Amino acid sequence: YPVYTSDQVAENDGSDGKPIWMTYGGVVYDVTDFIANHPGGSEKIMMAAGSSIEPYWHTYRQHFASDLPTRLLEHMVIGRLADDDQDKVDEQMDIIYETSEDPFSKEPVRHKALRVHSEQSMNAETPADLLTKQHLTPTSIFYIRHHHPVPFLTTEQVEAYEVSIDLSAYGKGTVKLSLEDLKKMPKTEVVATLQCGGNRRSGFNKYQRTSGTGWGQGAISTAKWGGVLLKDILKHAGLEDPIDAQENSNLHHVRFHSLDGVMASIGIEKATNPYGDCLIAYEMNGESLPRDHGYPLRAIVPGYTGIRNVKWLSKIELSKEEAEGAWQRGLNYKILPPSVTDASQVNIEEMPGMMEASLFSGITRMEAPGSFAKNAQPGDRVTMKVGGWAWAGGGRNIVRVDVTGDENKTWTTAVLGDGSEQRTGRAWAWTFWEAEVPAVVKEDRSVEVACKAIDAAFNVQPESCDHVWNVRGLGNNSWFRVTYRLPEQQRQL
Amino acid sequence: YPVYTSDQVAENDGSDGKPIWMTYGGVVYDVTDFIANHPGGSEKIMMAAGSSIEPYWHTYRQHFASDLPTRLLEHMVIGRLADDDQDKVDEQMDIIYETSEDPFSKEPVRHKALRVHSEQSMNAETPADLLTKQHLTPTSIFYIRHHHPVPFLTTEQVEAYEVSIDLSAYGKGTVKLSLEDLKKMPKTEVVATLQCGGNRRSGFNKYQRTSGTGWGQGAISTAKWGGVLLKDILKHAGLEDPIDAQENSNLHHVRFHSLDGVMASIGIEKATNPYGDCLIAYEMNGESLPRDHGYPLRAIVPGYTGIRNVKWLSKIELSKEEAEGAWQRGLNYKILPPSVTDASQVNIEEMPGMMEASLFSGITRMEAPGSFAKNAQPGDRVTMKVGGWAWAGGGRNIVRVDVTGDENKTWTTAVLGDGSEQRTGRAWAWTFWEAEVPAVVKEDRSVEVACKAIDAAFNVQPESCDHVWNVRGLGNNSWFRVTYRLPEQQRQL
Repeated sequence: YPVYTSDQVAENDGSDGKPIWMTYGGVVYDVTDFIANHPGGSEKIMMAAGSSIEPYWHTYRQHFASDLPTRLLEHMVIGRLADDDQDKVDEQMDIIYETSEDPFSKEPVRHKALRVHSEQSMNAETPADLLTKQHLTPTSIFYIRHHHPVPFLTTEQVEAYEVSIDLSAYGKGTVKLSLEDLKKMPKTEVVATLQCGGNRRSGFNKYQRTSGTGWGQGAISTAKWGGVLLKDILKHAGLEDPIDAQENSNLHHVRFHSLDGVMASIGIEKATNPYGDCLIAYEMNGESLPRDHGYPLRAIVPGYTGIRNVKWLSKIELSKEEAEGAWQRGLNYKILPPSVTDASQVNIEEMPGMMEASLFSGITRMEAPGSFAKNAQPGDRVTMKVGGWAWAGGGRNIVRVDVTGDENKTWTTAVLGDGSEQRTGRAWAWTFWEAEVPAVVKEDRSVEVACKAIDAAFNVQPESCDHVWNVRGLGNNSWFRVTYRLPEQQRQL
Repeated sequence: YPVYTSDQVAENDGSDGKPIWMTYGGVVYDVTDFIANHPGGSEKIMMAAGSSIEPYWHTYRQHFASDLPTRLLEHMVIGRLADDDQDKVDEQMDIIYETSEDPFSKEPVRHKALRVHSEQSMNAETPADLLTKQHLTPTSIFYIRHHHPVPFLTTEQVEAYEVSIDLSAYGKGTVKLSLEDLKKMPKTEVVATLQCGGNRRSGFNKYQRTSGTGWGQGAISTAKWGGVLLKDILKHAGLEDPIDAQENSNLHHVRFHSLDGVMASIGIEKATNPYGDCLIAYEMNGESLPRDHGYPLRAIVPGYTGIRNVKWLSKIELSKEEAEGAWQRGLNYKILPPSVTDASQVNIEEMPGMMEASLFSGITRMEAPGSFAKNAQPGDRVTMKVGGWAWAGGGRNIVRVDVTGDENKTWTTAVLGDGSEQRTGRAWAWTFWEAEVPAVVKEDRSVEVACKAIDAAFNVQPESCDHVWNVRGLGNNSWFRVTYRLPEQQRQL
C-alpha cells in the first residue's frame, strides 16, 4: 500500500468531483462509493471528508457498538497514513480525551434487566419475557433508542426551559412555552405504543446482513403519556385553519427539533387531526418524563414509527418541507426495495421515510402444559399455551391474531386481551393475546409456533422476511416464529 | 324420501328450538345448519322459514346467477312436498308473475363491454384491458355491484326527493335536504376509487371454493365525485362537536339508508374527520349520478370498501350502534379466519365488518417487445412491458410497486404514474404503474409476472392467497400473477 500524508488526504475531500478519502488508525480509505450508504446519512460522514475519522467516532460512539463499521472499511483501504501524521492525530485525540468532558459522563442509570445493544449511545430493548407482563411497560424497562448522549439540563436550565412554537412560515411569530405554561393548558392522556423502525432487525440478518442495531422483538414498549394536544398548541400559537394552511400556503409539515440535534417532521394532517391524538408530553406513566425518554418534553405521534416521537423538544415549526437531516431525509429510516443492496443505486431523496407503522406481532411466552408433553413422541400433537402482543400503526385496531403449530396447515384464532377494547381507528397501543395451539412434535422433540396479526383494514403480516428485506433492516414484520424444545422425556421405570 | 304437507313444513319454522324447513320445486330441505352461513344474512333466509322459497328467489334473483344455491341445497334434502301443495305454490307463483310488475323491468341500459356476472341483480366488472386506460374510469364501464333492482324514481318523485339527516339520537331533530338544497351548499370534488369487497374472489376459488360473485380484478373503478362534505351536512343539521358526541353520548356511528333497503354505517371518526373527505355526492365525473351509481344521491366514503358507499340515499342518522342488517352485521362483508369453513363455528356478531380497505394491485397489460421474444428459448430472459394499478384503503399512498418475472428471485421497482401525486394520507384513488421486467421463459414458452404493492405504512400484499382465504371470499389481495405465452417462434428459413 502507498503511504499518503495528511495534506494529500485533505486534497481528496469530494470537492470538484474528487474522491473522498478518510483516515482511521493510520489507514487511508477511499469512501467515495460508501457515502450514500452511510446509515447516519451522507451529511454526517462528509464532516470527515479529507481528514481523520477519530474525533467523529469519539462523539458518535455507535461506531463501536458492533464490528460492522470496521468490516465495511476493510473493503475501502487504499493506503497508509504517514506515521508522523498519525502521531499528530493520536496527540489531538489525547488532548480531546483529557480536556473535553466525556459527553457520556452524565448518562442516567439504567435498569439492569434491559438488553443493551450499545452503551454509547444507549440502545437497549425490553426482554421478551417482560414485554407482555403489563399492558403499560414499566418506565424503567421501556426500550431505549438514542442517537447521541442524553441531554443534561441543570436545575437552572430546566427553570429557563421553553419550547418554541414557530409559525413564521405561516406569517406569524414564535410563541414560547415553559413547562409551567403547558401544565396550565388542558391535559390529555394517551396510551401509545412506541416501536423502533428497526425492531426485529435481527430476523433480517439471518436472511441477509443489514446495518444497524440487531434488535430482537423488544424495541417496542407502551406507556401512558400525559401532556397537551399538539393541535391545541398549534392553535394557541396562531394556526387557525390547518386545511387552509396546507392548501393555500403549502404548509405540509410540522417539524420537531431536539436538544440532541435530531430533527424529524410529521404531516400537518396528523399533527392537527382531531382524531390524531398527537401530544406534546411532559409525563410518562403518571410521572415526569425521565431523561431517557425525553425530559423535559417530547412529541408523541401515536401510530407512527419511534423516530417521529422526538425527545428533548426544543422547537416545533410549521414548514413547507419536511425536516432536514439524516433522520427524516437520509437512509436511516427509509425502506429500500429488497433488490437494492447499495443505496447509491436509488434516489434516496425520492423515497418516503417511515411514518405510520405497519402491522407487527410477537410471541413472548410459550409452554407445553401437562405431563403428556413430557412423553410426546415425534409426530404427536401437543397443546402449547402461547401469548404475545400485536400492534398496527395508524391507530388500526387488531381484529385477529392467528397462530399455527403445524406449519400453517391449521390456524387457531387467539383470544384478544388488554388493548382489544381501544377506540376504533385510535388503537394507538398494542393488543395482548393468548391461545392454546396444537403443535406437531418434530424429530428433535421441538415444536415451532408462528403467529400473524390482522388489523382493522385487514392488512396481514407477510409470511417470510425475504421479500420485505431491505438493506437498512427496517420494518421486519414477517410472521413471528418461535421454536420450543419440549422438556426431557420421562425415563420409563 | 318421505312426503310432507305444507302444514307439516310450516310447523318447522325454527321457533322453540324446532328445525328450520323450506321447500323449493317440490323438495323439502332442512336448512337449520345453513342459516348462519347464508351469504345474504340469517335474517333474510329466515323470512322463508317453514314455507316455500320460490317467492323470495323471485325477488332475490342473485340465486339464479350461479349453480351454488342449488348445489348447497342438495345436501339438505329431507323429503318431498305433497304434489297438491306444490301445485298451490306453482299457482301462487303464476299469479305473482302475471299480476306483479317485474322488479327488474326498469333497469338502466348497460354498456356491452362490461363483464356481467349476474343480470338480476346486476353485477358486472370492468374488463381488465379497459381498467387502466384512463385514471378516471368512464362512467359507462364503471363496475356495478347491486343487491337488488335499481330504484326507479319518476320525475315527480325526484322533485319531491329529500334525504333526511336524523340527529334524534343526539337530542336534535331531522333536517331534510332536497337536491336543490344540497347544490346550494359548498361543492367538493373528490377523486376516489371504489372496490367491491369481493374483488378478485375468483383467485380464491382456485384454492378453495367460496360463495359469491366470481369477480376477476375488475370490481374496482375510479371516478371524480362531486357533492357536499358529510361533515358539513352533519354540522348543518346540528352536530356541533363530534368528539363530544362520541365520548359523552356514545354516538359512534353514522348510518346510511338506501331506497333499495340496504343499510350500512361508518364510524363518526371517518364521517367527521376534516381529512376524511366523506361526501354526499350528486355528481360522478362531472355529470349527474347515473341510476346505476346511486341517482339521485349516494355516500362516498373514500378508502373504504364499496358497500359503505351507500347508493340511493334516503336517510343519514347518528347512532350508538352500527347499522342493522346483513350488509353491516351479517356474513356478507365479514372476513372469517382461514380455518373456518362454517360460519356457525364463530360468533359473527363479534367480528368486525370490512371498513377501510387493505392493499391491492393488478396487472392489466403485458407485452414482450421486439423480435428477440419471438426467438426466445426456454431459460432465456425476455423483457416484458407490464402495467397496472395499485390501491390502498385508508388514504395510504402507494409508495412502491415491485414486479418480478423470475419467481421472486429479483424485483424491479415500477415507475409510478397517474395517482402517484395524491395528497399524503388522502390518496383515495388508485395509482397506475409500469415496468420493464426481465422474465424467464419456461418450458412451454410462457412467462409468469407477479406484482405487489407497498403502501405508505409499508404494508405489503401477502404472497399467496391460502392464508388470507376466507369462506366468503373477501379481500383477496395476494400478489397479482399473470401468465403470458410468447408469440409463436419464427420459422427458420
